[in-house]
Amino acid sequence: MKLRLATPGPTEVPQRLLLAGAREIIHHRSTEMEQLIHEISGGLPPLFGTSAPVYTIASSGTGAMEAAVANCFSAGDEVLVVSNGYFGERFQAICKSYGLVVHVVESDWGTSADPERVAAAYREHPRIRGAFVVYSETSTGALNDVEAIGRIFRDTDVIVVVDAISGLLVHPLEMDAWGLDVVLAASHKGFMLPPGLAFIALSDKAWTAVERSSGPNYYWSFERLRHFYPMSSSSPAVSLLLALHESLKMLDEEGMEAFRRRHAVLGRAAERGLLKLGFSTFVQAPNRRSHVITSALAPEGIDTGQLLKTLSTSYGVTMTGGQAHLKGKLIRVGHVGAADALDLSGIFGALEMALLDLGHTFTPGSGVGEIIRTFHEEGR
Amino acid sequence: MKLRLATPGPTEVPQRLLLAGAREIIHHRSTEMEQLIHEISGGLPPLFGTSAPVYTIASSGTGAMEAAVANCFSAGDEVLVVSNGYFGERFQAICKSYGLVVHVVESDWGTSADPERVAAAYREHPRIRGAFVVYSETSTGALNDVEAIGRIFRDTDVIVVVDAISGLLVHPLEMDAWGLDVVLAASHKGFMLPPGLAFIALSDKAWTAVERSSGPNYYWSFERLRHFYPMSSSSPAVSLLLALHESLKMLDEEGMEAFRRRHAVLGRAAERGLLKLGFSTFVQAPNRRSHVITSALAPEGIDTGQLLKTLSTSYGVTMTGGQAHLKGKLIRVGHVGAADALDLSGIFGALEMALLDLGHTFTPGSGVGEIIRTFHEEGR
Repeated sequence: MKLRLATPGPTEVPQRLLLAGAREIIHHRSTEMEQLIHEISGGLPPLFGTSAPVYTIASSGTGAMEAAVANCFSAGDEVLVVSNGYFGERFQAICKSYGLVVHVVESDWGTSADPERVAAAYREHPRIRGAFVVYSETSTGALNDVEAIGRIFRDTDVIVVVDAISGLLVHPLEMDAWGLDVVLAASHKGFMLPPGLAFIALSDKAWTAVERSSGPNYYWSFERLRHFYPMSSSSPAVSLLLALHESLKMLDEEGMEAFRRRHAVLGRAAERGLLKLGFSTFVQAPNRRSHVITSALAPEGIDTGQLLKTLSTSYGVTMTGGQAHLKGKLIRVGHVGAADALDLSGIFGALEMALLDLGHTFTPGSGVGEIIRTFHEEGR
Repeated sequence: MKLRLATPGPTEVPQRLLLAGAREIIHHRSTEMEQLIHEISGGLPPLFGTSAPVYTIASSGTGAMEAAVANCFSAGDEVLVVSNGYFGERFQAICKSYGLVVHVVESDWGTSADPERVAAAYREHPRIRGAFVVYSETSTGALNDVEAIGRIFRDTDVIVVVDAISGLLVHPLEMDAWGLDVVLAASHKGFMLPPGLAFIALSDKAWTAVERSSGPNYYWSFERLRHFYPMSSSSPAVSLLLALHESLKMLDEEGMEAFRRRHAVLGRAAERGLLKLGFSTFVQAPNRRSHVITSALAPEGIDTGQLLKTLSTSYGVTMTGGQAHLKGKLIRVGHVGAADALDLSGIFGALEMALLDLGHTFTPGSGVGEIIRTFHEEGR
């Protein structure tokens, strides 16, 4: 059976990138690697909207989250975590494991953080040294307004740490202009690569925090990353770097505006398709919906656990559902990376077949019809 | 120009493994992944000589070294680091960055640690909680007797941490029988894979240390690894896991005895070839030479920096030299992983050509002749 991914990441990796990663391995201290790294280190910063270097480490995105905590703070520091989903909770867990005093601005899953509440929390806890926020919360599909949150702390000495692991590339992010201090990303989302690489960009303000921090670290050490930059501080994941080099070319060929527009249309198409099939919108605010995934609550009588299992075993489609208390209720149609109108039509074809298998009543083709109609109207 | 690697890692990756890593990406919570992980988690422990689980993380080997320190010890703990090269020094650096009190049993680079001196250091510092040792010190080519060192601490509560990053597979390692507590390895040595995966196996004694440790960690957390085992605690490096699955098949097909024998013959052949070309043996004790690389001091008048540069720019061969004070003096011919008699003959062909370019006097073909002779005598 042909396997297809419709998850928030890992995403399907274009053959061109798979094969770029399958070329012969080069050594991390060779001239070939220097040339490769030169081009990568030139290509990454504009994608983060920064003139600062972007560091690349061999780890998952969680490693980059921990690196930010370990390098910029010390046990006992007060921090604010903006939390409206699974990854906000992960920031809390990591901060706590480092002995930080965590204040949480909590919002319901599926909503976005209200910047006003973040500002109020800062007034209440003026001694915080950092504010953590997830850009695209892929556990729900909600997008946080990191530009507005950045503005709150811009002229303070509070470090704003942004998990842009899935949000980067898909949504605009201007690190320097928005006053963001630590921006984290990973390879297996918009970059269309296999998992295994994480990216970290740091503002000057973040570096002052690094100097003041006393947390132990070695592999994550930002000072070691800076010392070896643009080369790696440890053996890098060479095959993933080879593929990253090609990914940057693909992104450049498509252009970031077209890339973002494609994801926006994918999001709208998926939303309309899901509504037509009897699902209901989970993220209410239209301008706060992430274009990484489209989440929706299942129609009455449909258990999404069963639906996802049918999709996987009968149709080879891996899709994910709700995490924590949303298990069984939510589906999350992933369309980040290289996904296009035809991919999404195929995924919705599988979704319709699986819904029929589960006895759901609807007009076959009506969901896919919405995909086709949206792309016909808005252009591929 | 065709590129060839003769480094201690990354090694050349067989096409079969490159292509296994280039198959379509599967999701880390899918049934396909469960099947893959099931086979990987069955295949790894015998290679470590243990019945304990072997955990796989997305990171370089250095990450695994840090994970051992972060999980098993607390600031203020006394530890012993057996150090006879670059990676022994790295253990020291990581331990110090975590606030451990480090006692060092230092031996000259190129020699191996004397287990008697390790036992004496333990008598002098009976309060140590851990002993760190590198199995194959790839900065010099010296092999430490981890079996004898394990025996010293076997019936104590001292945790023995072994960096087997390059030594595993190439040399016998019986974690359970030798009383080793934390054994670390990485993908880009004997496993013949690209860098990016690290492996960690833990004894029951190591787990008691984990429970007592108070160091902060999240990504490295052994408890999180155990909680999710055999699945990954974070997004795993899927393409590398696909390739690992195939690597385990290749290792099984060759058989570990044949694999080790091949490396031993490669080491002897390289040694004889280098001597013939005027190099001199760096690791004096024959039974303490790692079969991962063969190191040798350059003939009078040859700067190895220049030699390695010529090898790289004129012949496409990446080889490494001495680190730290051995820069310019040492070469290290890497032959770990899939290297065979023909690869080594090619590498020595390039070495002879580069030596001629630098004006060194010898009979062309005499170095390669030793490779051919050795394999003819000992069998490929």
